Amino acid sequence: MYTCEIISVGTELLLGDILNTDEQFLSRKLASMGIAVLHRSSVGDNRERLAEEIRRALTRSDIVITSGGLGPTPDDLTKEVCCEVMDCPLVEHKDQSEKIRRYFEKKGMDMPESNLKQAMLPADCTVLENDNGTAPGGVIEKNGKCVIFLPGPPKELVPMFTDQAKPVLAKYSSGAIVSHSIRTMEIGESALAELAGDHMDSPNPTVAPYAKDGEALLRITASAESAEKAEELCRPVIDGLVKKIGKYVYGVDYDSIQQRVVELLRENNKKLAIAESCTAGYTAKRLTDIPGASAVFDCGIISYSNEVKMNLLGVSEVTLKKYGAVSSQTACEMAEGVRRLAKADLGISMTGVAGPGSDSEDKPAGLIYIAISDGTKTVWEKLNTGKTNDREYNRYVSASRALNLVRKYFEKII
Amino acid sequence: MYTCEIISVGTELLLGDILNTDEQFLSRKLASMGIAVLHRSSVGDNRERLAEEIRRALTRSDIVITSGGLGPTPDDLTKEVCCEVMDCPLVEHKDQSEKIRRYFEKKGMDMPESNLKQAMLPADCTVLENDNGTAPGGVIEKNGKCVIFLPGPPKELVPMFTDQAKPVLAKYSSGAIVSHSIRTMEIGESALAELAGDHMDSPNPTVAPYAKDGEALLRITASAESAEKAEELCRPVIDGLVKKIGKYVYGVDYDSIQQRVVELLRENNKKLAIAESCTAGYTAKRLTDIPGASAVFDCGIISYSNEVKMNLLGVSEVTLKKYGAVSSQTACEMAEGVRRLAKADLGISMTGVAGPGSDSEDKPAGLIYIAISDGTKTVWEKLNTGKTNDREYNRYVSASRALNLVRKYFEKII
Repeated sequence: MYTCEIISVGTELLLGDILNTDEQFLSRKLASMGIAVLHRSSVGDNRERLAEEIRRALTRSDIVITSGGLGPTPDDLTKEVCCEVMDCPLVEHKDQSEKIRRYFEKKGMDMPESNLKQAMLPADCTVLENDNGTAPGGVIEKNGKCVIFLPGPPKELVPMFTDQAKPVLAKYSSGAIVSHSIRTMEIGESALAELAGDHMDSPNPTVAPYAKDGEALLRITASAESAEKAEELCRPVIDGLVKKIGKYVYGVDYDSIQQRVVELLRENNKKLAIAESCTAGYTAKRLTDIPGASAVFDCGIISYSNEVKMNLLGVSEVTLKKYGAVSSQTACEMAEGVRRLAKADLGISMTGVAGPGSDSEDKPAGLIYIAISDGTKTVWEKLNTGKTNDREYNRYVSASRALNLVRKYFEKII
Repeated sequence: MYTCEIISVGTELLLGDILNTDEQFLSRKLASMGIAVLHRSSVGDNRERLAEEIRRALTRSDIVITSGGLGPTPDDLTKEVCCEVMDCPLVEHKDQSEKIRRYFEKKGMDMPESNLKQAMLPADCTVLENDNGTAPGGVIEKNGKCVIFLPGPPKELVPMFTDQAKPVLAKYSSGAIVSHSIRTMEIGESALAELAGDHMDSPNPTVAPYAKDGEALLRITASAESAEKAEELCRPVIDGLVKKIGKYVYGVDYDSIQQRVVELLRENNKKLAIAESCTAGYTAKRLTDIPGASAVFDCGIISYSNEVKMNLLGVSEVTLKKYGAVSSQTACEMAEGVRRLAKADLGISMTGVAGPGSDSEDKPAGLIYIAISDGTKTVWEKLNTGKTNDREYNRYVSASRALNLVRKYFEKII
């Protein structure tokens, strides 16, 4: 098995200004390719220390991947140090300088001369194009060792690794690891593990529960000599688990509930409208994270006051006075109101106390009502997250659960 | 200045199963105490490699902090290795074995014998009590070097460091480090560094540029014997920089543009309404991330189709036919339309192509129009992010820039 080390570069890391998510991303990807990560480290923008770190890593491992330090400023020196250690001269790559120039032109900005530094690359390397920034990456292979330098920002590193570095690394890969996720809502991690029963003890594939942001998932991971063989090991286990877990499952290998909801709306040729109070746009934002959501969604109302709830959504003054804005009654009238206003097939709504804190004792932060209406029936649910001090969580989970109502509607669970 | 290294222990880290937040937490705390973090690393549960790592760190630095590997299972060996390297015998601490026994009793569980391993601690060490788990930590000080071992779970590490390790470390603290951020928009990282000029070479405070999500910031960091002295060093530099950078600055030490915008709206006692097309709720979501935003915002319209733009916002059919939905004209009518509908003082809007890809050649993904209206004048801006394939970025930046319009409105730059 080939071994790899990851070196993250940047004084900002050592100061704790930035959370290093690149390391985890790379570790996970390398593990899934059957390349063993032996060691990871973070060093500052310091030439000697970085060179020493790369040299030491190369004595222990076959592959070294660096992230960060490819910017245009003088303290960005990862590429230079990689070249020094690998004894590779840096030369200007004309196509890259052209590309950087065009990048700035397109943005209608003048290119600072310092950016040309980013077009200086090892004479003999595989260039990794950067479609999300100006710093290209590269792969230097020499004397049986491989050094890969990647930009630091995750938005640049992730696609560069996935689309370009991974294929280059394929020759170092030993066997295949395949992983799938069963995603669920409205059930906790431990209850999920209990439902999964004996499957939890399976050695290959392994089954592991994870909890995140109001959801729980089971990750099924198999290793075998080929991806096909690993898939074959997974399949019966996934089928068995989905059957056992039943209505809590919103999908296998979905990225998010919104992905499932857009798919269901498209399949059923239905349009959704959204009325948001406490979430204030979060639900619509997440639904429209999915490209093509415009086919199933075109109207959202953010009604952050009683006036807007009445004037735009037609919630009755009596309801608001009698039950308050945070009530099942208001949620139901909002859902039906937005459906009618938008001339949509389905309307969903969420109204609650996001926090931190609450003005009212009987309506604590974390208390949220959500509803769905199709014009004939309206169904509501009450959530209480118990988190009185986590505004983001309360808003996130409200949106998730309201979207899950749409899933349950189509699956006829409600 | 004393130097420190952080070593994270656990094969699960190298597999990417866990995001290492301990490192960032410790780095930040140490920086604020004036202890320089020189190096960080992650190693697996491997006795030789961990010993080698600690030894090497001690040749370079005064202090080594480890996290993780204090559990009851045989692969948890951090404490043993720390003792080996520091030449300190492990002995049973009776008070700790009692404590662990009580911990299990309280949970109504039998204590597995293996847990007693956690009561074995260096003969001569400062014990760090664990009130959130069973593994105590410790501080070994010998021959001018200091090794601190902490448990891995953040819920145990964070309070243990804050309440117990930090006081022990106080004697290594050299004054204070203070850091401030000047946050800007509409200017790139390198152009910002060029504007900053000579300040970039300042040794104390240091000035460093960072780019993130369509923004650029300068971080000003000073170290001195006290926080007050460090602040004194920062102040003139910050003032000088803010003057030089001028209109691009949206704030010093703000977390986000929305924080600044909510503040400006409150100060000016004005209400904002938001009409969103491509961002579809993202702008309102971000504005309402700020607790108390309801005082300045109560109505948002997500108009993801021409019909909704006409019917709810009053955008004219002629405008949509002649210029299209993605045009300055539509953006202006949306901003004024939502302002009127919401009876607000200001209306902002964003309409554009988020991508990935575009249906029309002359309107590529990343082309966005934003506008602001106060009922007497309407001002628009055209953005072209150049990112045809990054939906999230295009939407994020549209929201940011529209919010920045509100800032520029109050600062009379537009």
